[in-house]
Amino acid sequence: MDIIEYLRREKKIVDEALDRLVPAADRPPVRLNQAIRHSLIDGGKRLRPILLLAAAQAVGSKKEPLLPFACAMECIHTYSLIHDDLPAMDDDDLRRGRPTCHKQFDEATAILAGDGLLTLAFELAARPIQGVPAKDSLAMVVQLAQDAGIHGMVGGQMMDMEAEEREVELAELQYIHIHKTGALIRSSCMAGACLGGGDATQINKIKRYGEAIGLAFQIADDVLDIVGDSELMGKTIGKDQQQSKATYPALMGVGQARDEANNLVNEALSCLKDFSDDAEPLRALARYITDRTH
Amino acid sequence: MDIIEYLRREKKIVDEALDRLVPAADRPPVRLNQAIRHSLIDGGKRLRPILLLAAAQAVGSKKEPLLPFACAMECIHTYSLIHDDLPAMDDDDLRRGRPTCHKQFDEATAILAGDGLLTLAFELAARPIQGVPAKDSLAMVVQLAQDAGIHGMVGGQMMDMEAEEREVELAELQYIHIHKTGALIRSSCMAGACLGGGDATQINKIKRYGEAIGLAFQIADDVLDIVGDSELMGKTIGKDQQQSKATYPALMGVGQARDEANNLVNEALSCLKDFSDDAEPLRALARYITDRTH
Repeated sequence: MDIIEYLRREKKIVDEALDRLVPAADRPPVRLNQAIRHSLIDGGKRLRPILLLAAAQAVGSKKEPLLPFACAMECIHTYSLIHDDLPAMDDDDLRRGRPTCHKQFDEATAILAGDGLLTLAFELAARPIQGVPAKDSLAMVVQLAQDAGIHGMVGGQMMDMEAEEREVELAELQYIHIHKTGALIRSSCMAGACLGGGDATQINKIKRYGEAIGLAFQIADDVLDIVGDSELMGKTIGKDQQQSKATYPALMGVGQARDEANNLVNEALSCLKDFSDDAEPLRALARYITDRTH
Repeated sequence: MDIIEYLRREKKIVDEALDRLVPAADRPPVRLNQAIRHSLIDGGKRLRPILLLAAAQAVGSKKEPLLPFACAMECIHTYSLIHDDLPAMDDDDLRRGRPTCHKQFDEATAILAGDGLLTLAFELAARPIQGVPAKDSLAMVVQLAQDAGIHGMVGGQMMDMEAEEREVELAELQYIHIHKTGALIRSSCMAGACLGGGDATQINKIKRYGEAIGLAFQIADDVLDIVGDSELMGKTIGKDQQQSKATYPALMGVGQARDEANNLVNEALSCLKDFSDDAEPLRALARYITDRTH
């Protein structure tokens, strides 16, 4: 399958759903909704919602009913970027090729835009889904909160900040990656498999798939920060090195970091070996992680 | 009934539940969990969880199974205080008689502690509740997200900040209060009535009760900022006036603001006239709002 064309088509579906589900920019409070849309709309690759939809497809489900939950994933991802970019955190001026939320608006608005997006995510995730038992929806809301929260993404960001001030070894770096980026990627995959009606074995295999590609994605991202194309990536390249930030390539070299990412992708693919052709998008997404150039 | 003794007893129940449900301070990420507990534990009056439990009692329900959802309300309230206190927002050094989260720790930790608490709130709210249909839980998670989000509390805070820079009239001030404080108080009451198994009429009456006391509470708070006891309130008194902030007493005088609060309390009490003695705590809570001195 043509992964670039697939990603383009899926991103369009997600973008249209986000535009429908997120408050219009002319609705009060106008400045807040403008700030949210500035950061959310037309921006990212939509990897997390696309993974959720691909996981649902892999267990034979339609995508349409799961769009609100898929969009919830993007809301959480975007809120985390808005808050991470704040002066008190990573202090970034540029994101996805545009001014970050607090640069375009102001710090207070950016804090509230993040809070609003995080809250909206749970409103979308808890919407009843046609054909899905309410108890499954509820279980996936709990799971999402765990993966996004203190012992998931937020905790990972905290660890990452604390680690900036000292030497970090590989085990700790892996811990940070698994929490900061991995948890939400795994959560997207699991939610798609569960809400798509997969059985326990399928859900568990897709969970392990998600864990593997989540870590692979972050390692590949670190590699791209060194060898990637600044223009294509829409952000400053080499920033990790400038800040002497611990990364996989910094700790083991670019070559070994690439090997590590490839091994994880192969592990992810092996989790899908009993799945039908419906899992082709999931397989192609795993391969794309290490093949991409931005 | 003795409202002071009732509040003391209920606060103890809520405090114990919070201590059980919120990660321990020695669990990683330690600094994050310490910051969360600094702001959450032993702090507030626990008005929102107590209202939720009292609303459940008013429709004949036990309180115990609803404690996680009640604690979710306090998590959301506390996260909003942590973020509101940040330098980019209200820039407060003191809260509940102690250093605010960013003063005790740092800004980045305070931002993440707020994010963690907001996310934890949804983890707690979405937990299955014994005897409550999953679809009712799901509906209350959606409702909570709406009341806490862009068109509820977060939106109200945004409006409040925008209003600081200019003259505000009564209609706009009321809008701000209803969203910034009122929505979460109403949500607490409704969640208690719905998850406690109330019928549609009861839920609707308790919703109107919550709306009325939510606004009354904020007006009373504004009055206390002028006439209250700084030591008892654990925060700086007279700050609204110093900042020439629009408040009910500033717009209509202390006397008329008190009348307005009393009228709202009477309206709240009239919503409960068909309820049994089980609604006595709700009634006493309404009266307490205008009688309290801190």
